[in-house]
Amino acid sequence: MSKVKMISPAVPNVPWQDKPEDHTGAPVWRYSENPIIGRNPVKGVARIFNSAVMPYGDEFIGVFRGEQVNGIPYIYMGRSKDAIHWDFDKDKIQFVDEEGKPFMPIYAYDPRLVKVEDTYYIIWCQDFYGAAIGIAKTTDFKTFTRIENPFLPFNRNAVLFPRKVHGNFMMLSRPSDSGHTPFGDIFVSESPDMVFWGKHRHVMGKSSEWWESLKIGGGAAPIETSEGWLLFYHGVSGTCNGYVYSIGGAILDIDNPSIVKYRCENFLLTPEEWYEERGFVPNVCFPCATIHDSESGRIAIYYGAADSYVGLAFTTIDEVVDYIKEHSVVTTSDTEEGRR
Amino acid sequence: MSKVKMISPAVPNVPWQDKPEDHTGAPVWRYSENPIIGRNPVKGVARIFNSAVMPYGDEFIGVFRGEQVNGIPYIYMGRSKDAIHWDFDKDKIQFVDEEGKPFMPIYAYDPRLVKVEDTYYIIWCQDFYGAAIGIAKTTDFKTFTRIENPFLPFNRNAVLFPRKVHGNFMMLSRPSDSGHTPFGDIFVSESPDMVFWGKHRHVMGKSSEWWESLKIGGGAAPIETSEGWLLFYHGVSGTCNGYVYSIGGAILDIDNPSIVKYRCENFLLTPEEWYEERGFVPNVCFPCATIHDSESGRIAIYYGAADSYVGLAFTTIDEVVDYIKEHSVVTTSDTEEGRR
Amino acid sequence: MSKVKMISPAVPNVPWQDKPEDHTGAPVWRYSENPIIGRNPVKGVARIFNSAVMPYGDEFIGVFRGEQVNGIPYIYMGRSKDAIHWDFDKDKIQFVDEEGKPFMPIYAYDPRLVKVEDTYYIIWCQDFYGAAIGIAKTTDFKTFTRIENPFLPFNRNAVLFPRKVHGNFMMLSRPSDSGHTPFGDIFVSESPDMVFWGKHRHVMGKSSEWWESLKIGGGAAPIETSEGWLLFYHGVSGTCNGYVYSIGGAILDIDNPSIVKYRCENFLLTPEEWYEERGFVPNVCFPCATIHDSESGRIAIYYGAADSYVGLAFTTIDEVVDYIKEHSVVTTSDTEEGRR
Amino acid sequence: MSKVKMISPAVPNVPWQDKPEDHTGAPVWRYSENPIIGRNPVKGVARIFNSAVMPYGDEFIGVFRGEQVNGIPYIYMGRSKDAIHWDFDKDKIQFVDEEGKPFMPIYAYDPRLVKVEDTYYIIWCQDFYGAAIGIAKTTDFKTFTRIENPFLPFNRNAVLFPRKVHGNFMMLSRPSDSGHTPFGDIFVSESPDMVFWGKHRHVMGKSSEWWESLKIGGGAAPIETSEGWLLFYHGVSGTCNGYVYSIGGAILDIDNPSIVKYRCENFLLTPEEWYEERGFVPNVCFPCATIHDSESGRIAIYYGAADSYVGLAFTTIDEVVDYIKEHSVVTTSDTEEGRR
Amino acid sequence: MSKVKMISPAVPNVPWQDKPEDHTGAPVWRYSENPIIGRNPVKGVARIFNSAVMPYGDEFIGVFRGEQVNGIPYIYMGRSKDAIHWDFDKDKIQFVDEEGKPFMPIYAYDPRLVKVEDTYYIIWCQDFYGAAIGIAKTTDFKTFTRIENPFLPFNRNAVLFPRKVHGNFMMLSRPSDSGHTPFGDIFVSESPDMVFWGKHRHVMGKSSEWWESLKIGGGAAPIETSEGWLLFYHGVSGTCNGYVYSIGGAILDIDNPSIVKYRCENFLLTPEEWYEERGFVPNVCFPCATIHDSESGRIAIYYGAADSYVGLAFTTIDEVVDYIKEHSVVTTSDTEEGRR
Amino acid sequence: MSKVKMISPAVPNVPWQDKPEDHTGAPVWRYSENPIIGRNPVKGVARIFNSAVMPYGDEFIGVFRGEQVNGIPYIYMGRSKDAIHWDFDKDKIQFVDEEGKPFMPIYAYDPRLVKVEDTYYIIWCQDFYGAAIGIAKTTDFKTFTRIENPFLPFNRNAVLFPRKVHGNFMMLSRPSDSGHTPFGDIFVSESPDMVFWGKHRHVMGKSSEWWESLKIGGGAAPIETSEGWLLFYHGVSGTCNGYVYSIGGAILDIDNPSIVKYRCENFLLTPEEWYEERGFVPNVCFPCATIHDSESGRIAIYYGAADSYVGLAFTTIDEVVDYIKEHSVVTTSDTEEGRR
Repeated sequence: MSKVKMISPAVPNVPWQDKPEDHTGAPVWRYSENPIIGRNPVKGVARIFNSAVMPYGDEFIGVFRGEQVNGIPYIYMGRSKDAIHWDFDKDKIQFVDEEGKPFMPIYAYDPRLVKVEDTYYIIWCQDFYGAAIGIAKTTDFKTFTRIENPFLPFNRNAVLFPRKVHGNFMMLSRPSDSGHTPFGDIFVSESPDMVFWGKHRHVMGKSSEWWESLKIGGGAAPIETSEGWLLFYHGVSGTCNGYVYSIGGAILDIDNPSIVKYRCENFLLTPEEWYEERGFVPNVCFPCATIHDSESGRIAIYYGAADSYVGLAFTTIDEVVDYIKEHSVVTTSDTEEGRR
Repeated sequence: MSKVKMISPAVPNVPWQDKPEDHTGAPVWRYSENPIIGRNPVKGVARIFNSAVMPYGDEFIGVFRGEQVNGIPYIYMGRSKDAIHWDFDKDKIQFVDEEGKPFMPIYAYDPRLVKVEDTYYIIWCQDFYGAAIGIAKTTDFKTFTRIENPFLPFNRNAVLFPRKVHGNFMMLSRPSDSGHTPFGDIFVSESPDMVFWGKHRHVMGKSSEWWESLKIGGGAAPIETSEGWLLFYHGVSGTCNGYVYSIGGAILDIDNPSIVKYRCENFLLTPEEWYEERGFVPNVCFPCATIHDSESGRIAIYYGAADSYVGLAFTTIDEVVDYIKEHSVVTTSDTEEGRR
Repeated sequence: MSKVKMISPAVPNVPWQDKPEDHTGAPVWRYSENPIIGRNPVKGVARIFNSAVMPYGDEFIGVFRGEQVNGIPYIYMGRSKDAIHWDFDKDKIQFVDEEGKPFMPIYAYDPRLVKVEDTYYIIWCQDFYGAAIGIAKTTDFKTFTRIENPFLPFNRNAVLFPRKVHGNFMMLSRPSDSGHTPFGDIFVSESPDMVFWGKHRHVMGKSSEWWESLKIGGGAAPIETSEGWLLFYHGVSGTCNGYVYSIGGAILDIDNPSIVKYRCENFLLTPEEWYEERGFVPNVCFPCATIHDSESGRIAIYYGAADSYVGLAFTTIDEVVDYIKEHSVVTTSDTEEGRR
Repeated sequence: MSKVKMISPAVPNVPWQDKPEDHTGAPVWRYSENPIIGRNPVKGVARIFNSAVMPYGDEFIGVFRGEQVNGIPYIYMGRSKDAIHWDFDKDKIQFVDEEGKPFMPIYAYDPRLVKVEDTYYIIWCQDFYGAAIGIAKTTDFKTFTRIENPFLPFNRNAVLFPRKVHGNFMMLSRPSDSGHTPFGDIFVSESPDMVFWGKHRHVMGKSSEWWESLKIGGGAAPIETSEGWLLFYHGVSGTCNGYVYSIGGAILDIDNPSIVKYRCENFLLTPEEWYEERGFVPNVCFPCATIHDSESGRIAIYYGAADSYVGLAFTTIDEVVDYIKEHSVVTTSDTEEGRR
Repeated sequence: MSKVKMISPAVPNVPWQDKPEDHTGAPVWRYSENPIIGRNPVKGVARIFNSAVMPYGDEFIGVFRGEQVNGIPYIYMGRSKDAIHWDFDKDKIQFVDEEGKPFMPIYAYDPRLVKVEDTYYIIWCQDFYGAAIGIAKTTDFKTFTRIENPFLPFNRNAVLFPRKVHGNFMMLSRPSDSGHTPFGDIFVSESPDMVFWGKHRHVMGKSSEWWESLKIGGGAAPIETSEGWLLFYHGVSGTCNGYVYSIGGAILDIDNPSIVKYRCENFLLTPEEWYEERGFVPNVCFPCATIHDSESGRIAIYYGAADSYVGLAFTTIDEVVDYIKEHSVVTTSDTEEGRR
Repeated sequence: MSKVKMISPAVPNVPWQDKPEDHTGAPVWRYSENPIIGRNPVKGVARIFNSAVMPYGDEFIGVFRGEQVNGIPYIYMGRSKDAIHWDFDKDKIQFVDEEGKPFMPIYAYDPRLVKVEDTYYIIWCQDFYGAAIGIAKTTDFKTFTRIENPFLPFNRNAVLFPRKVHGNFMMLSRPSDSGHTPFGDIFVSESPDMVFWGKHRHVMGKSSEWWESLKIGGGAAPIETSEGWLLFYHGVSGTCNGYVYSIGGAILDIDNPSIVKYRCENFLLTPEEWYEERGFVPNVCFPCATIHDSESGRIAIYYGAADSYVGLAFTTIDEVVDYIKEHSVVTTSDTEEGRR
């Protein structure tokens, strides 16, 4: 049993590999058979990467960023028995609007998948006269009903919390501008009904640590734990030869997630392997989901690699929380309630 | 009596000058004694410009962008008997938060002032980890209570409608980025309570007319008329020597303001006089408010000039609506309900 | 009689003012009643500036850049008895194509007007999937037939020579890029038939003199003289507050205009008056045409001022050629035949 | 026999490998021994990449971009018996001008090689006071006579058609600006004599497909077929970590190549292998030539890889034309005659 | 007698005008006959602006930035009986090197003039493979001997102190980059011999006050007073239409000038008059020198206006020190010894 | 014995591998077991790259750029018996100031290590209100005393000479700006005492060779030879996908190192191997040190690879000097004493 508790279901079939004996540094290690999804995984799809998965019955289900061979991204569904080998639908997800009529965004990318109460929500980035957040809901993974866009453009990397806080839905997002923005902080917003959003608060910004000194953005849906909300996010460094995306970790206050309790000054994972350093966008590790088992404390992190592959990495709740706390550096901006 | 009706109070003491006989072009003409507010109008304030005024009792009241001698802008109150000569408070407005404690943004600029039902709202631009919209309300112009920020950054040029539509407050805004953004469209958002905002819709973007080919933004609060919501806004052109801000006009659907009924392809006013072409930011005409009399159909437009002065211009509801309709060019993007 | 001969008709009614007694510097002096064309000169036209004029019968005719009140430029015709007071047509020029069908570019600006043999050519800048050169011809100023675009985009400031050289038409142009390009040199090209163009040669580039250290471009049509082709062109300096456009002078080899014989290191005219320093684009003197009388040696230079007005300046052929030669600094790049 | 006819000679020794059984996606597959030209292929030459080859007698000949160890590119000749293994001349090609005197551009890159009637033309990019197109002709591959530059700068990626159309030579090119231009469309121009060029028409621009959403440029010389001119070109996507160059396909009208009959919305080949993703410029597949056999319908595509290697890929005329037609998306801009 | 003492000579003929009665704001007022130097002041010189003057015998002497009619700046000498009307030498200053041979920089601008012990030093900005500081010395204003450049490029706005501190010469400078740099702080450096420089310290940077939120730079030579070194400097604000240069004031520690004792949060003078807002570079007030009388406490400030004119403004030592102290806002960065 | 003499100690245990038989091009060849330092070499350090080593007693010692797992670089010490396998200290170097108190820069990178007389100097890049040069000295590698910063910001790539010249210390540096500067030349400065620096001279700039056409910077400490100072430096090329760093070679005059005697037009080593092309910053070979044996003439070059690894390459003094001289291209700017 883990020391730190995850308030979430048991997932006994969480994918797993033990930590290599010679592993040093942050307690996050790669799956030895990475990447788990290679090039040209589906007819008409050149690359699958930044994507989100979760348990579903005894198996697993997921929503995937599928970069079509015309370069335009859409969201594809996939199913798996072991969360490692995936079968993908041949066609992209066909959404409907509130009246049941077909709805298809011009493009859709970087989906997250979160269950709140009995409904599954897919949150992605789409065009709304500029890059913005789109949402759909489903209860059966057959009908996907898009609902109101939560925010004005320009916004990306929205991540829903897996339960309401004080009766309101909670969502992280990263307002920014219209291009390859060189800046961006994480905010949290609330909604009583998934239609109207407000009480926007600043959560955290880039830091003085160089690996996240350019911008940051939410990653996997926060995991509720006895220590607070465990957040895997991405931090970006700017080099003369482009951006480098690493995975970071932080723990947010359970009752007021705009307050950062701990924030790890070190990255948890940074591009080092060929499938992370080489591809459509070199040097990218971009976390979008976890599968975690509250019984064993095991956590499997799914991340996009080089905008070309899906990678898998492992940790345990005890190890990662200890590491984050041990190397935590928080600033006033992190620990204040981010209201101005 | 005007042909087009303004659904608003009579303001018999609206400031006025008849149209010069030799006036050509758009039916908007300058006050001959412009600028009505010159340099160094208040001790410690170098320039007053983009500002909003309205009738109050038998006189007039306003909120003013006062650029302090350290260059930082705050909001100042002013009162006037004729809406031309203004007395300003010596100190900037002191806001309080919902609990009555003092609140002062780091900076505040480009205020608008709108009365909805029995409450006056001041909407401005302030820092919220980036440029964003701030709001305060008052019923007596003595206590100003700031309320929730409506939107995430980055946003500017928010303009509240003077009445609810279908039971919801309506607000225009212009999401953008963190700098002297070279792009930006007008959106409209709804709120049942001035706290939670949603149902965001795109209203209109820059156009192929060069005077508004870079970006646009809301200006004065829309005037309700028998033809729809009359909107004076600003359009920006980019030259090799900087931006040029002109005043444009459009008419929005009365029941669904995300739909543009008419949009004038020509500017209504563009920098031509010394106080518009010369100053802290040359070549700026920036409308922020109107005073309008539903009896006579007279409209007085208040605009910032060169980020250094306040200018005053006149039109009548019949002339300006005719001109807008006569020169209207709308695109599909204008006339659709801006949802994606 | 002038010492330097202009090989061109006598124009006894060339506009003229004697040089002010206290004039110093380059022998180019402004007309005391400048600007000769003010704001809002035609209904629907906000500003007339960079434009070209020439003698026509006993009077004068011209093509004018008319910036419409929607900000989009088109070409307007004007006629004058004294070349100072101008009457403009109410409508922009309506072109036809080679088959006589209406043709109207999306926009058209900075026209030049040149007579070669018995035909008048108008050369301007228009959209051709990017800024490019457009041409039309007329013999009666009633029918204007557009002909083939001479060059690929991106190109501006094309200027036709007033006679063929070695049997070919000759044209200066300034290839560049798609925006407010910070670079650009003058080239010359030849054509046997005004359809096919080739034998492109480099004429001259920016120089080490600061007033023309950013880019340059052709101005008025070259004047044939006993010393060579006299060229008034524009040179641009880049400041932290935008570009500054001045007028320069050079003399090209009569038989091979790609060779620069003399090039004046000093500007001939630079923005110093309010109508040059203040307007839609501050700090612009942009020459587009001359009227010159071979009898008296008098030259009247027409130039756009601040993208808002038309200015007029004077010189004589003897004085300006002497000044250019006296202050001539040419580089190897200037004096070589610009072929690589 | 192929269904679609190529109007070109039989080349029975065209290099070939059958399609791998598990190949999916566009019917273009890589040579299993790629890259066919590795690093440091010639003394003093660090890398050979973007290059053009063709049959010559019973063997093959080619012109190669050889990046010298000082980084400056020149054109080198090579010969081969199988079009896979190449012998290169030790020295770069020595051009002469029309009078037989030595001519050497400051640099020369990205050559194409095309035979029209009995003459071979080499077309490359060189300095002409900016990046521009250079041309030389030869009949014996011993004497290379440079002829007039066809266009003004700034221009790249010029590709000659292998026969005249309506009596005129035809050439594709890509006008742009002076740097790593983020924009650029393909145009076609005509010439009666390879000296004077005109009748410039727009062929096609970037598209809404993301893989070619930044800019495009001509690649291999068009292949004449019973369906029209088959064009392999390059399309560029912009990422936060640089450009990605893919290979695209289109079919132009046989009589009027400014009209696009079919244009494949999907890339035909995109960087996926180490020699395409890693090198002097990562993520580049840049087609410059084909060898094609009208008997068998086989096509071998030569492409530069990562500005470091030469790659070889295969297709057949039937498969590739079918694929292009099946996935064709053309816009009005594509199918109009590109004149404005 | 002034309350604050200036440790400097009496200059009874310091130019002077009393403060206008209606003057408000910072106690710095303009000379009513500004500008004191107009356009084209010397044959071959278009504009004189950023320049330095000082008493010399019973009269005044100065070094002036003269922008030649080719746009290139050099340094010119001038003499005056009243420090308002100036006679300029016809030729630029001819420097010699340490061996007495002629030396002329490629360009020279923004000179300062300071007397230390019995020697006069001219410090300017020149090319040293990039913008850098040049120095010359003279004792008779006839022979000007250039000495070693004090710093590596890129540097501007160097200002020498009028006496040694702790036995070393002291100089302010503003390291930056090679263009219209959008950043820059003031540093101080020491030298035992005017050849070798070291002990570089940070003095102050831009501030959160908007008028100096982009960059700052030294202005006039510091005035020694009983309160510390009084420094008039320039602060720059960035607008969408270019930079705005204002004059600021600070007081540095007398024994360790890297420590800022007081720094005025408000500008002392900002562009408001036509000769400051309109010219070669609009919106510039750039202080380069003072003449000050320790008897009366009067200070005359000379400043460049719009890179086109010289302006004159007045204050008194008591008023300006009081104002600076009253509105002083210093940060930790200001008050620390700027060593890292 | 070598033909060219190195005036430096014998280092019989210099690491070495013979040149591969098939090696072509510049006589610099890689160690077959590269990289010699891999990822995660020390707990808490993700990557060691740009670093400097030297003989110390019978063994070797070095200072290493250790990029911590928070991305921030510091300097670490390492020791080795063979200069190939290194043991690193667990903690970064703890500096003290002149008074013996702890001193730690905010960050420190790209160290060089040079012995002059009996003192070892470490020179690195650190924050000094911007990127600047820091220095420390030690005699025992136990106490490291930081001394005065030699230059104002912004500066990088400082390299000390291993002996005084004409009694003064000599140091190369590369002034530039505050970011990923796209420009930069090498200068040399002198100091009598390592405190005050002056007599700054320009050494060399970027060249017309493309591999060093963007900027250059000093690399390893110059080696004194009978031919002059042998300098390995880095040259940078700019591609559309980022910078490429190669190693170049030059020989400076022994008595006046601002004069370049020979400069090799070709790179000596350029990224070609996976550990140079793939990593945190792709395409980087960055030399920082050599170990060289005056007996055998062998030289081992240590270079950072892809900002992720340390690589080792070999040459001999005779071969590399011959190659540099044989391919030498110097310009006037190189061979002049760089004073202006």
